[in-house]
This record gives sequence, structure tokens and C-alpha cells, in this order.
Amino acid sequence: MSETGRTEAFSDGVLAIAITLLVLDLRVPVRDALEGSLADALGHEWPSYAAYVTSFLLIGIIWVNHHAVFELLGAIDRVALFLNLLLLMTVAAIPFATSLFAEYLTAGGSAARTAALVYSGLFLAMSLAFTLLYRYVAGRPALLAAGVDPVALRRSVVRFSTVGLVLYALTMVIAVFSAQATLAAHFVIALYYCFRQTGSRPRAAS
Amino acid sequence: MSETGRTEAFSDGVLAIAITLLVLDLRVPVRDALEGSLADALGHEWPSYAAYVTSFLLIGIIWVNHHAVFELLGAIDRVALFLNLLLLMTVAAIPFATSLFAEYLTAGGSAARTAALVYSGLFLAMSLAFTLLYRYVAGRPALLAAGVDPVALRRSVVRFSTVGLVLYALTMVIAVFSAQATLAAHFVIALYYCFRQTGSRPRAAS
Amino acid sequence: MSETGRTEAFSDGVLAIAITLLVLDLRVPVRDALEGSLADALGHEWPSYAAYVTSFLLIGIIWVNHHAVFELLGAIDRVALFLNLLLLMTVAAIPFATSLFAEYLTAGGSAARTAALVYSGLFLAMSLAFTLLYRYVAGRPALLAAGVDPVALRRSVVRFSTVGLVLYALTMVIAVFSAQATLAAHFVIALYYCFRQTGSRPRAAS
Amino acid sequence: MSETGRTEAFSDGVLAIAITLLVLDLRVPVRDALEGSLADALGHEWPSYAAYVTSFLLIGIIWVNHHAVFELLGAIDRVALFLNLLLLMTVAAIPFATSLFAEYLTAGGSAARTAALVYSGLFLAMSLAFTLLYRYVAGRPALLAAGVDPVALRRSVVRFSTVGLVLYALTMVIAVFSAQATLAAHFVIALYYCFRQTGSRPRAAS
Repeated sequence: MSETGRTEAFSDGVLAIAITLLVLDLRVPVRDALEGSLADALGHEWPSYAAYVTSFLLIGIIWVNHHAVFELLGAIDRVALFLNLLLLMTVAAIPFATSLFAEYLTAGGSAARTAALVYSGLFLAMSLAFTLLYRYVAGRPALLAAGVDPVALRRSVVRFSTVGLVLYALTMVIAVFSAQATLAAHFVIALYYCFRQTGSRPRAAS
Repeated sequence: MSETGRTEAFSDGVLAIAITLLVLDLRVPVRDALEGSLADALGHEWPSYAAYVTSFLLIGIIWVNHHAVFELLGAIDRVALFLNLLLLMTVAAIPFATSLFAEYLTAGGSAARTAALVYSGLFLAMSLAFTLLYRYVAGRPALLAAGVDPVALRRSVVRFSTVGLVLYALTMVIAVFSAQATLAAHFVIALYYCFRQTGSRPRAAS
Repeated sequence: MSETGRTEAFSDGVLAIAITLLVLDLRVPVRDALEGSLADALGHEWPSYAAYVTSFLLIGIIWVNHHAVFELLGAIDRVALFLNLLLLMTVAAIPFATSLFAEYLTAGGSAARTAALVYSGLFLAMSLAFTLLYRYVAGRPALLAAGVDPVALRRSVVRFSTVGLVLYALTMVIAVFSAQATLAAHFVIALYYCFRQTGSRPRAAS
Repeated sequence: MSETGRTEAFSDGVLAIAITLLVLDLRVPVRDALEGSLADALGHEWPSYAAYVTSFLLIGIIWVNHHAVFELLGAIDRVALFLNLLLLMTVAAIPFATSLFAEYLTAGGSAARTAALVYSGLFLAMSLAFTLLYRYVAGRPALLAAGVDPVALRRSVVRFSTVGLVLYALTMVIAVFSAQATLAAHFVIALYYCFRQTGSRPRAAS
């Protein structure tokens, strides 16, 4: 397998594991400790389900975007490898931040604010690592695959990076005021990314 | 790797992780808290083993069917990517629903009913996501691999979707009456899918 | 990817996850509950380390043998797919049996015996599933890769199956008498498989 | 897939899972047991975050180096397969040692020393397994890919092995005196490996 192919496969592995580990945040109410009905106990866990869906979509989107970046690469160097590792380090921590956010979403006060800030802050850090990786490879024509236009690429990097950084920075502002609005904002960001490019032509398999 | 190839590899990763995480639902009785013999304590956990086997087979079948759908694809677009993500989101939650079902299978009353409804409901949602994905790609000749007959495909989609949706909807009806019959019904569905196509010719490797 | 290639990749995924999940059986002594030195507390956990090493080697060997079987295949059918799924179902349960065995290895009496029987029984079941899969494909020339000699293969299946089944059945007999001797026997089996074929020629990459 | 290709893919799977399981060491403070602010409780967990970052980088580096070794191979034999399995066995245990180290980093006294020695000792064992694998394949021209110069390779093995073994042995000495200095030393080793070869030319894809 090529250098870029193996890096992509390793990254895919980490992304697939991180997205699937989100299920560990969905807790089964202990039978002997159950008060009231199970339906009520499960309903009480709604923040976990909302956080699961939101984080699942967001990691899915990271996977799609990560793939789009690696499609541009014809080679990879040490710096890009470690910027990619930095990105994976933030993604692998998402199940933790998701669990924390779900636990304190309805706690109110400073605890809910702290959890919301950690969740938003992690996505901001992820977006920053992604921007660093993307900018780095876009500025090194030797790393690009044949036929990739460096000028158009650089313009796309600026647009992509700015949107991500601004959106996640905005959620940090929202986090100061309301944890639940913060989760809703992340969900809206997920939907935005899901539907943004649906008009694009199908890419050929090869 | 091609777009469809990488999506398939990522999906395979999520399916392989979800199927293996089922083992976390098998609990080891704590030694210091053991009353009576270990054999009795393990025997008491039979719902966990029954649920493990059933969910393992069902996720295995999802993997086989998922592969069959992707074999038809020559390309993929954003909508298909996110319908696939929706499908994976339901599959990744199966270890949670399995654990919940095992915990309350013998609880009787409304708790057992709730757990059975959640389990059946998740498989119905999975079946629905699968149907949406399958119908979507079947209706877009641009996404199909060379040599796939769109008309025959559309007929196959209708049959496949109807069977899955009806079977899982039926388990929801059963869930209203008996949790244990619901698990048995899922097991029968798994066997049905396992043996249904065993008469088919071996597919050539290439 | 070919049908056999994708089945192999999915199986590899399950095997890699099962082998890595063994680490979850290694428990960190809780700091606030620590009595005496940490070194003593860790030393007290020696059954976990012994079981980890043994199960890790055994799953590693299953992976090597699984690969050897799939190298013979040129195609796969539904029956082989589901025999393979059955095999994976037993392998994915190994972290549970390992954890159970480690917890009760030094418990003595019937609890230790039960845990040893479960551990040995699971490996016997794995060996049985492997035998079923191997015999099935060996008896179907249509599934074999070009150049594979069915007669020599059938002889190899008999030898391979008999050795595995007899060895694991023997550990069940040992389990009746001593849990610790059972673990030692499994470790010896692992070493036997590791060194058995080391004289063989390197297989060329291609 | 070739013999070396499949071994590499399996190893990548184990490495990707081990690196992602590190997230399970990041614990969410239980809401009902929270005393003081959540920010304080999270801040109190700083050893977990420091250990997460350090172990994540170190496993990432193991992955890069593992890949570099496998790039030299044209074939693989049983001995190399099991030396590789030994290496994976040490890597898969890193999440356990990381969790142990984080739990006792600030405990002081002999407990902190024990945890630091276990952490350093595991990395030393990993380095030893890596050295054994690397030396073994370097001494067998039949296993090397076409164009690999055995003499230059042998010189590189000596340098690589000595650096790794000496560095990790040094951390064991540091562990006798200070757990926190031990973690810092591991972090410095990670940075050393990250930046050491950044001047190297990009390797071509394909």
C-alpha cells in the first residue's frame, strides 16, 4: 500500500473506532436501582441520545472531509503525518467530551457551561488541527497529486478553514449562555455540512 | 482507493467494531459479591448470551446485505454517503439496545416491554435507513456499476425492503405481548436470513 | 474488493478488535481503595496478566490460521460466510471468557473449575467452528483458488482439525482438576502453534 | 492481499484500536458525586490528559516506525509473524499502563514510583520486541523487498534499536526518582521522534 493509502487506512480506523465508541456513552439503567418505569428512566437520558446523534454526524462529516483532503495528496511527509496525528488525537477524544456534555447538559449553572465549553473547545481544536494539516499540504506542491491546481486549492483551504473555525468559535460563545443551545448549534452545523454539497455531481469510482 | 471502496471500508470498520463490542454486554460476576455457585450466576445471565448470539447474527447479516448493495455501486454522492451514515448510526447503537434488552428480558411487566420495544424499534429504524439508502441508489443510474440492470434492481429493492420492514414491524407487535418471544422472533429472523440464500451460486472472487 | 477479500478484511477487523479488547481485562487498582503497596496490588492481579498473554497469543494464532484458510479460497458462498460468522462469534467472546477465567483462577473449588471449563469450552467451540468452515470449503472445489489440490487439502483439514479439537478437549479434562493447570495448558498450546511451523519457507509477497 | 500486506493491515488495526481506546482513560466526573465546580474536578484530572497526549503520540510514532519496517519486507515467515505479535501485545497493553500511570501520577511515594516503572517498563518491552523483529528481518535477505541494501539496513537497525532501548531505559532510571519527570521524559521522547526526521524528503505515493 502507498504511504498516503496506509495513512488514510489508519485514520479511517481511528475515525471508525471513535464513532462507534460513542455507543459506550449510552447507559443502560441498572435494573435493581430502577425507580419508576424504564420508559421514564430512558426518557431521562435524552441528553445522551441527542449528544450521540450529534457527535456521530460530526465525526461522520470529519471522515468525509478527511477523505476529501487525502484525495488531493500524491505523497506525504513527516510533518503532514504528525499534523494528521494531532487531528486524530482530537477526534479520538470526542467520545469523552460527548459523554461529559451529556452528563451535565441539564445540570444548569457553571457545570453545564463548563461541559459545553469543553465540547465546543474540542471541536474548535479539531477544526484548528484540520486547518493546519490542510494549509500545510496545500502549500507544498510536491505533496499534491497530479492534476491538483495549487491556486484553486489554496482558495478552497481559506474558505473551508474560515467556515469551520468561525462556526465552532461561535458555539463557544453560545456555550457561555446555554448548554442546550450549544448542542442544538452543533446539530445545526452537522446538518449544514450534510446538505451543503448534496448538489455536487457523483464522483466516479475507479 | 475509490470513493465507494473507502466508504465500504469505513462501514466495514464500524460494523466490525459494533459486532465485537457486543462482548462488553457479557458481564463477569464479581467474585466478592458471588452468592451461590458461579455456574448458577452464569446461568442466571442467559438473557445476555441469547441476546449476544442474536445481535451478532443480525449485525453479521447487515454486513452481508450492506456488501451486496455496495457491489452494485460504481460511484457515490453526498446523499448516499449520509444515508449510509444514518444506517451506521443505527447499527452502532445495537450494542446498547442489546445490553438494555438483556438486562430487562426477565424483568416482566412494562420494563421488559419497553426494552423489547426499544430493541425492535432500533432494528426497524435500521431497516428503514437501509431501505432509504437502497432505494436512493437504485433510482440513480449514474451511481450504478456497469452492467447493473436498473429495472431488476428496483424490483429487488421493493422485495428486500418490504420483507425487512414487515418482519421488524412484526417484532414490535410481538414486543407488546412478550419480551422473550420478541428475542426469539429476532433469532428466527436471523436464521431466516442465514439460510434463505444458501442455494445461490458461489460468487467468483476477482 | 473481491468477495473473499472483503470477508477477510471484516474478519481481520473483528480479530484485531477482539485481541485489543483483552486490555480491558487489565484493571487499574482504585487509588482510594488501595490497601498496602501498589506493587502488591498489581502482583495480586497476576492471573489477569497470565490470561492476557495466553489469550493474546491464541487469538494471534487464530488469525494466522484463518488467513491460511482464506488463502486457499477463490470464491465464497452463503454457507461459508455464516460458518465464518459463527467462528467470529466465538472469537469475539474470548475477552469475556478471559476476564472470567482471570477473576476466578485463584478462587479454588467449583468456581475456579467452572471458569476454567467455560474458557476451555469456548476454545473448543471455536475449534469446532473452524473445523466446520475448513471442512466445508475443502469439500467444494468450486470455492477453491486455482492450483489448490483438493486431495492434499482434505488430508490437511483432517490433521489440522483433529489436533485442535483433541488439544482443546484435553484442556477441558484438565479443567476438571485444576484451573491453573488449564491456563498453563492453553499457554503451552499457544507456544506449540507458534513454533510448530517456524521451519517453513518464507511465503512470497505478491 | 499479500502475506506482508495482511500482516500490516492487522497490525494497523490493533494500533488504531489501542490508540483510540486511550480515550476510555478520560473519565467523566459523576454528576451526583461532584463536589465543588466541574472545572475544578476536570482540572484535577490533568494527569489523565497529560498521559493521554503522551501515549497517543508514542503509539502514533510506533505506527510510523512499524510501517517503515514493513516497507522493507518482501515476504514474511512464522518467526517474524510471532515477533510482530509480541510487539502488538506490548502496544495493546499501553492503554492499561497509561490509565495506571495517570491514576497514581500524583499519589507520591512508592505507588507513584511503581506506576512510573510499569509505564516505562512497558515501553522498554515494546522497544525490545521492536528490536527483535527489526534485527530478525534485517538478518534474513530472503525476507527483504527487492532493492533493500542489507548492509545499510543492518547499520540502521543498530542505530534505531540502540536509541530506543537507551531512551526508554533512561526513563526507568528517572522513574525511580520522580513519576512526573518520567511522564515529561516520555513526552520529550515523543517530540524527539516527531521532529527528528521532518527534514526528510516526501516519500512518493504508490
